[in-house]
Amino acid sequence: MVTHLPDVRYLSGFTGSSAALAITRRAGCLFTDGRYKAQAAEEVEKTNVSIVSGSPAVAALEWLAVQPSVNTVGFDPASTTVAELSRWKNSLPAKPRRNFLSALEAPLVEPLRWVKDEEELALMSKAALTGCALFEHMLGFIRPGLREIEVAAELEYQARLRGAEGMSFETIVASGERSALPHGRATGARLPRRGFLTLDFGIILGGYCSDMTRTVYLGKPGNKERFAYQAVLEAQETAVAAVTAGMSCGTVDEAARSVLRKAGFAEAFSHSTGHGVGLEIHELPRVGAGQTAKLLPGMVITIEPGIYMAGQFGIRIEDMVAVTRSGGNVLTPAAKALIEL
Amino acid sequence: MVTHLPDVRYLSGFTGSSAALAITRRAGCLFTDGRYKAQAAEEVEKTNVSIVSGSPAVAALEWLAVQPSVNTVGFDPASTTVAELSRWKNSLPAKPRRNFLSALEAPLVEPLRWVKDEEELALMSKAALTGCALFEHMLGFIRPGLREIEVAAELEYQARLRGAEGMSFETIVASGERSALPHGRATGARLPRRGFLTLDFGIILGGYCSDMTRTVYLGKPGNKERFAYQAVLEAQETAVAAVTAGMSCGTVDEAARSVLRKAGFAEAFSHSTGHGVGLEIHELPRVGAGQTAKLLPGMVITIEPGIYMAGQFGIRIEDMVAVTRSGGNVLTPAAKALIEL
Repeated sequence: MVTHLPDVRYLSGFTGSSAALAITRRAGCLFTDGRYKAQAAEEVEKTNVSIVSGSPAVAALEWLAVQPSVNTVGFDPASTTVAELSRWKNSLPAKPRRNFLSALEAPLVEPLRWVKDEEELALMSKAALTGCALFEHMLGFIRPGLREIEVAAELEYQARLRGAEGMSFETIVASGERSALPHGRATGARLPRRGFLTLDFGIILGGYCSDMTRTVYLGKPGNKERFAYQAVLEAQETAVAAVTAGMSCGTVDEAARSVLRKAGFAEAFSHSTGHGVGLEIHELPRVGAGQTAKLLPGMVITIEPGIYMAGQFGIRIEDMVAVTRSGGNVLTPAAKALIEL
Repeated sequence: MVTHLPDVRYLSGFTGSSAALAITRRAGCLFTDGRYKAQAAEEVEKTNVSIVSGSPAVAALEWLAVQPSVNTVGFDPASTTVAELSRWKNSLPAKPRRNFLSALEAPLVEPLRWVKDEEELALMSKAALTGCALFEHMLGFIRPGLREIEVAAELEYQARLRGAEGMSFETIVASGERSALPHGRATGARLPRRGFLTLDFGIILGGYCSDMTRTVYLGKPGNKERFAYQAVLEAQETAVAAVTAGMSCGTVDEAARSVLRKAGFAEAFSHSTGHGVGLEIHELPRVGAGQTAKLLPGMVITIEPGIYMAGQFGIRIEDMVAVTRSGGNVLTPAAKALIEL
């Protein structure tokens, strides 16, 4: 039984917000509610659809309980809450078979999603290139005195006009001292005459997320700012160059981390180097310190080292990289040399 | 231990995406990761903050395990996955006390959030009125031939300029036959010369969500369309009039449902009448058939009956209503009589 919505979408094509998918060796059925009757008929081609008035998951369990030779239903413990599991158990017929509900020891659908096929890569590349075009557009828009929220508004408006179904996550526009916040949402703060400005954003196209970050400088940077920017850029490019199928995620992380360590920014780099991306903005693998998982051809990951110094400034540079047999294919080829606006 | 992020925000003020809050009778501590060091210092005033490199929830459990006279840690089963609970159990010291981790039988923090205080109501009213101003703006923007996605782009751009931190949910712009999709995301489809257009959207202000829906007609509606619109409007107004403290949610739902039943639209009204709204776009109570929960003063709910006829059209009208001792206070006073554009 598949209840994690990105997994349901991946397997069935259904994009609604309420669904469960039941699959046996012989049959399958998607369960959703009345709001999605027309949408499910339109989107789901190869599976039966059943419209139910209660919980789609409970309906899926009831359906599975009467399928021939189904003794156990595997469910995803990472997307099932303790309360849901309890409700499911209570909803089963009076004497459910022993161990009828069984938590999967390892995810079954997500690993299929980690490796993208050609069609998915084409869509993600299109989303990533749209992100680059948006960044280019923003370079002509950004000027001191604008509010961060106006920058986010323009970026998101232009994203919509270029076909985005939405943003992958809350757009980050962090200027001046606020650039030291790794997740600095756009606020009413005005862009300074001098200081860094970090833009971290992504768009959704055909369900797939893009993700990129660029940090620019308003005015003339000092030597300290230039030195810090070059360190982050070198760390980012070193990690991108380390990407190749078979490489462990920890090694890629260390490629970025060692550059920043040598430059004296070990403490200031306070997060992982990157993460998988696809139908969800954060997927496995985690490109972090000590991660032994190996990169596979077709994975799409972010490479986004950054440094953050509270009360001073922050810098982050992020690309999306598709893993290939012989290296990494950067999907976000926007300029990375320090831009002064 | 509080791990549901809207609950963490409600209790501590912290708005980051990774956190756990541990509370005993004597002390409390917010756990988050290095990305949020500066942000937590800025946002959290009345609680200690601890920056951790691993899971904030595991750090919270370790902290709780060594607090004096803590024998049991209650956790929220509705926001804890089966996999998380298993990891938490494995992370506990070698011999955890029996029943150290205990699922709460009823939520503790959410019920506090259902009833809004004056400050929250003021913020939600501001968000709702901003939504009304956006709708007014859109009436001057909408014209046949525009793509749905352009309508969404303009609406979201104007929302940002008016201070929205983001949208409460993916903006629904559903025109012509697509209006029969209750959750019709904006697509590349062009607005028709004749047909209904449903706008369902909300903005986030200070963390609080607004939510409203209006359906307008492009061109001159026929008698069938007028009749259907009047039925939905009467159902919506009847349900709004039924809102008052002490009333059961099922009674409010039935107020809308009986009007649509009499008009022959029983089947076409395929969802609940409404839901609570606040820091999350969907909160309890559920204003649905048979719901016995009683409305309390200070609750904010939506009233949003709709009818959907595949291949023809759909209509939905939605207000946010604050429950008072003597009735309901409509927070979204935008016009509801059928607008022809």
